[in-house]
Amino acid sequence: MATQQAIQVVLASRPATPRASLENFRVETVSMPVPSAGQVLVRIDTLSLDPYMRGRMNDSKSYAKPAEIGQPMPGESVATVLESSSPEFVPGDIVLVQAGWRSHAALDAKGLKKLAVEGFNASAYLGVLGMPGFTAWSGLEVIGKPKAGETLVVGAATGPVGSLVGQLAKHKGLRAVGIAGGEKKCAYLLDELGFDAAIDHRLPNFADELRSACPDGIDVYFENIGDAVWNAVVPLLNQYARVPVCGLMAQLSGKLSHDTSKDYLAQTMRAVLTRSLQIRGFINYEFTEQYFDAFIREVSALLREGKIKHIEDVTVGLENAPQAFLDMLDGRNFGKVLVQVSA
Amino acid sequence: MATQQAIQVVLASRPATPRASLENFRVETVSMPVPSAGQVLVRIDTLSLDPYMRGRMNDSKSYAKPAEIGQPMPGESVATVLESSSPEFVPGDIVLVQAGWRSHAALDAKGLKKLAVEGFNASAYLGVLGMPGFTAWSGLEVIGKPKAGETLVVGAATGPVGSLVGQLAKHKGLRAVGIAGGEKKCAYLLDELGFDAAIDHRLPNFADELRSACPDGIDVYFENIGDAVWNAVVPLLNQYARVPVCGLMAQLSGKLSHDTSKDYLAQTMRAVLTRSLQIRGFINYEFTEQYFDAFIREVSALLREGKIKHIEDVTVGLENAPQAFLDMLDGRNFGKVLVQVSA
Repeated sequence: MATQQAIQVVLASRPATPRASLENFRVETVSMPVPSAGQVLVRIDTLSLDPYMRGRMNDSKSYAKPAEIGQPMPGESVATVLESSSPEFVPGDIVLVQAGWRSHAALDAKGLKKLAVEGFNASAYLGVLGMPGFTAWSGLEVIGKPKAGETLVVGAATGPVGSLVGQLAKHKGLRAVGIAGGEKKCAYLLDELGFDAAIDHRLPNFADELRSACPDGIDVYFENIGDAVWNAVVPLLNQYARVPVCGLMAQLSGKLSHDTSKDYLAQTMRAVLTRSLQIRGFINYEFTEQYFDAFIREVSALLREGKIKHIEDVTVGLENAPQAFLDMLDGRNFGKVLVQVSA
Repeated sequence: MATQQAIQVVLASRPATPRASLENFRVETVSMPVPSAGQVLVRIDTLSLDPYMRGRMNDSKSYAKPAEIGQPMPGESVATVLESSSPEFVPGDIVLVQAGWRSHAALDAKGLKKLAVEGFNASAYLGVLGMPGFTAWSGLEVIGKPKAGETLVVGAATGPVGSLVGQLAKHKGLRAVGIAGGEKKCAYLLDELGFDAAIDHRLPNFADELRSACPDGIDVYFENIGDAVWNAVVPLLNQYARVPVCGLMAQLSGKLSHDTSKDYLAQTMRAVLTRSLQIRGFINYEFTEQYFDAFIREVSALLREGKIKHIEDVTVGLENAPQAFLDMLDGRNFGKVLVQVSA
């Protein structure tokens, strides 16, 4: 029958430039995986696409092993159990899995996490209640140490991380300023997410606009862009400002300006010294053991009470995942990027 | 009588370039200060020259008010009380004062700190037991969080801050690697201060030498140089490395390379992200209230037991302070720079 076939998207080649392209991926039809004893066969419902995956395409020292050529791209998904030889799962269970860019997978039961879906779509566990949400919460809380009355700036502010960072900051009494690409995203930040100001990083006078939006300077800058945005932020950072560094989208996209008109590294280090700044890179899982429960408690309550909104940008069909991924790296997504793998 | 005259060194003009020059200073003969009620007349014995003073010569936003044109340069000294109308001080007391580059000063008694000099030269309170010492101790302890078995690298390693950082690291069981300018300083680090390795930053293959000296990477980099040294350090920083940023001598000297052959800011930020680095600027007084007593306790004990050495580079005569100061910014000093103001 037709379900004996599965599809997957593999890494065909490593990008030769910072900018990845469609040729780096290959969509393959393979035979349906067969679970061995103790394993569970799942159907992937929704795959999460995240910027960190770009790093995995390189064969370089990073916080995670590179993806292998010819193997499925790594990724997290929400899935439905089809067959189970494990006493812990029955067909129909909704689970969180690390199965990569695939339509089906046979997985060890211990790697699966059953999801309690009460009042949420299961896909929330890929975004606001998942890795991006915890990245936002832990970077803000543990490194950003936000205090009421302070000013927070966050880039990629309609993205799954940035949108939660800004909304959490508002709930804690901070002034929240979002940076995003284009008028539509900026309007959304103001009208739907309650940000105090929203600046389009594509504006030629971006640095001036940012300065106007931060009359008392910046106390927490949640960094996920880098490059020209960072250079505009640095002069505005207040004494003892905190900078959780969560991502550098500008580097991932391969569109680095490398502006040599000024020694921007010297500007950065001088600001660090004279204003006692803290810059701290992090990966959410460094904080999982200590803080994940507190995160789920706080954010799921806010979500249930309707005090936090989340946006999903859904592409239909696993074969369209590579293009959706490249669009995300170019900032063309609007919200958490998901791929609907099965109807 | 001759003692009715005092001398002082004032800021004649602000440097137009990062590199200051002799013309920015003026030596003046003035009448002897006359203490008013409650004040104390002191004779400055030893003036401390420190890199932070270069920042005070600029009229720019920093952590301290700029020096004023026509007024004495700011600075800390060890002094002897000549006259006192305060019950707390009697002639002959040795005190620590903030009196600037002057031979004599009339000061409010509350600004003076009587020094208990037991087994030290009073000048130790300007170096290893003073502001430079506390800068070393607090940056290392509070931000660097050194652990036995780790590797520490420190620049300007024969300087008053760097030499203590390295020696404290050795006492805590770390591998200590010092960076200094010239063979003589490097030999001193190895032979006298017990560093595990010493690298001359003037070597053309400096980056390779540094890499060889850090076979297990770098866990704590105590930054007080910046520029090309920083660019060589970044690739060697381990995951979760800590970087207390205490100074940027390369910027003070006005000899920034602004090497545009590579996007070094992008290199720095990528390292911060992928290796979860912490970079934290600081000024020692942020930590004074909480930690100063612990510092004095620990370091004075090490000093008494002969477990820590300190080096003094003494220039005789206040009129020679400007040249000694400029030499220090060029790295031509060897140890804590002091000016012997009175015999």
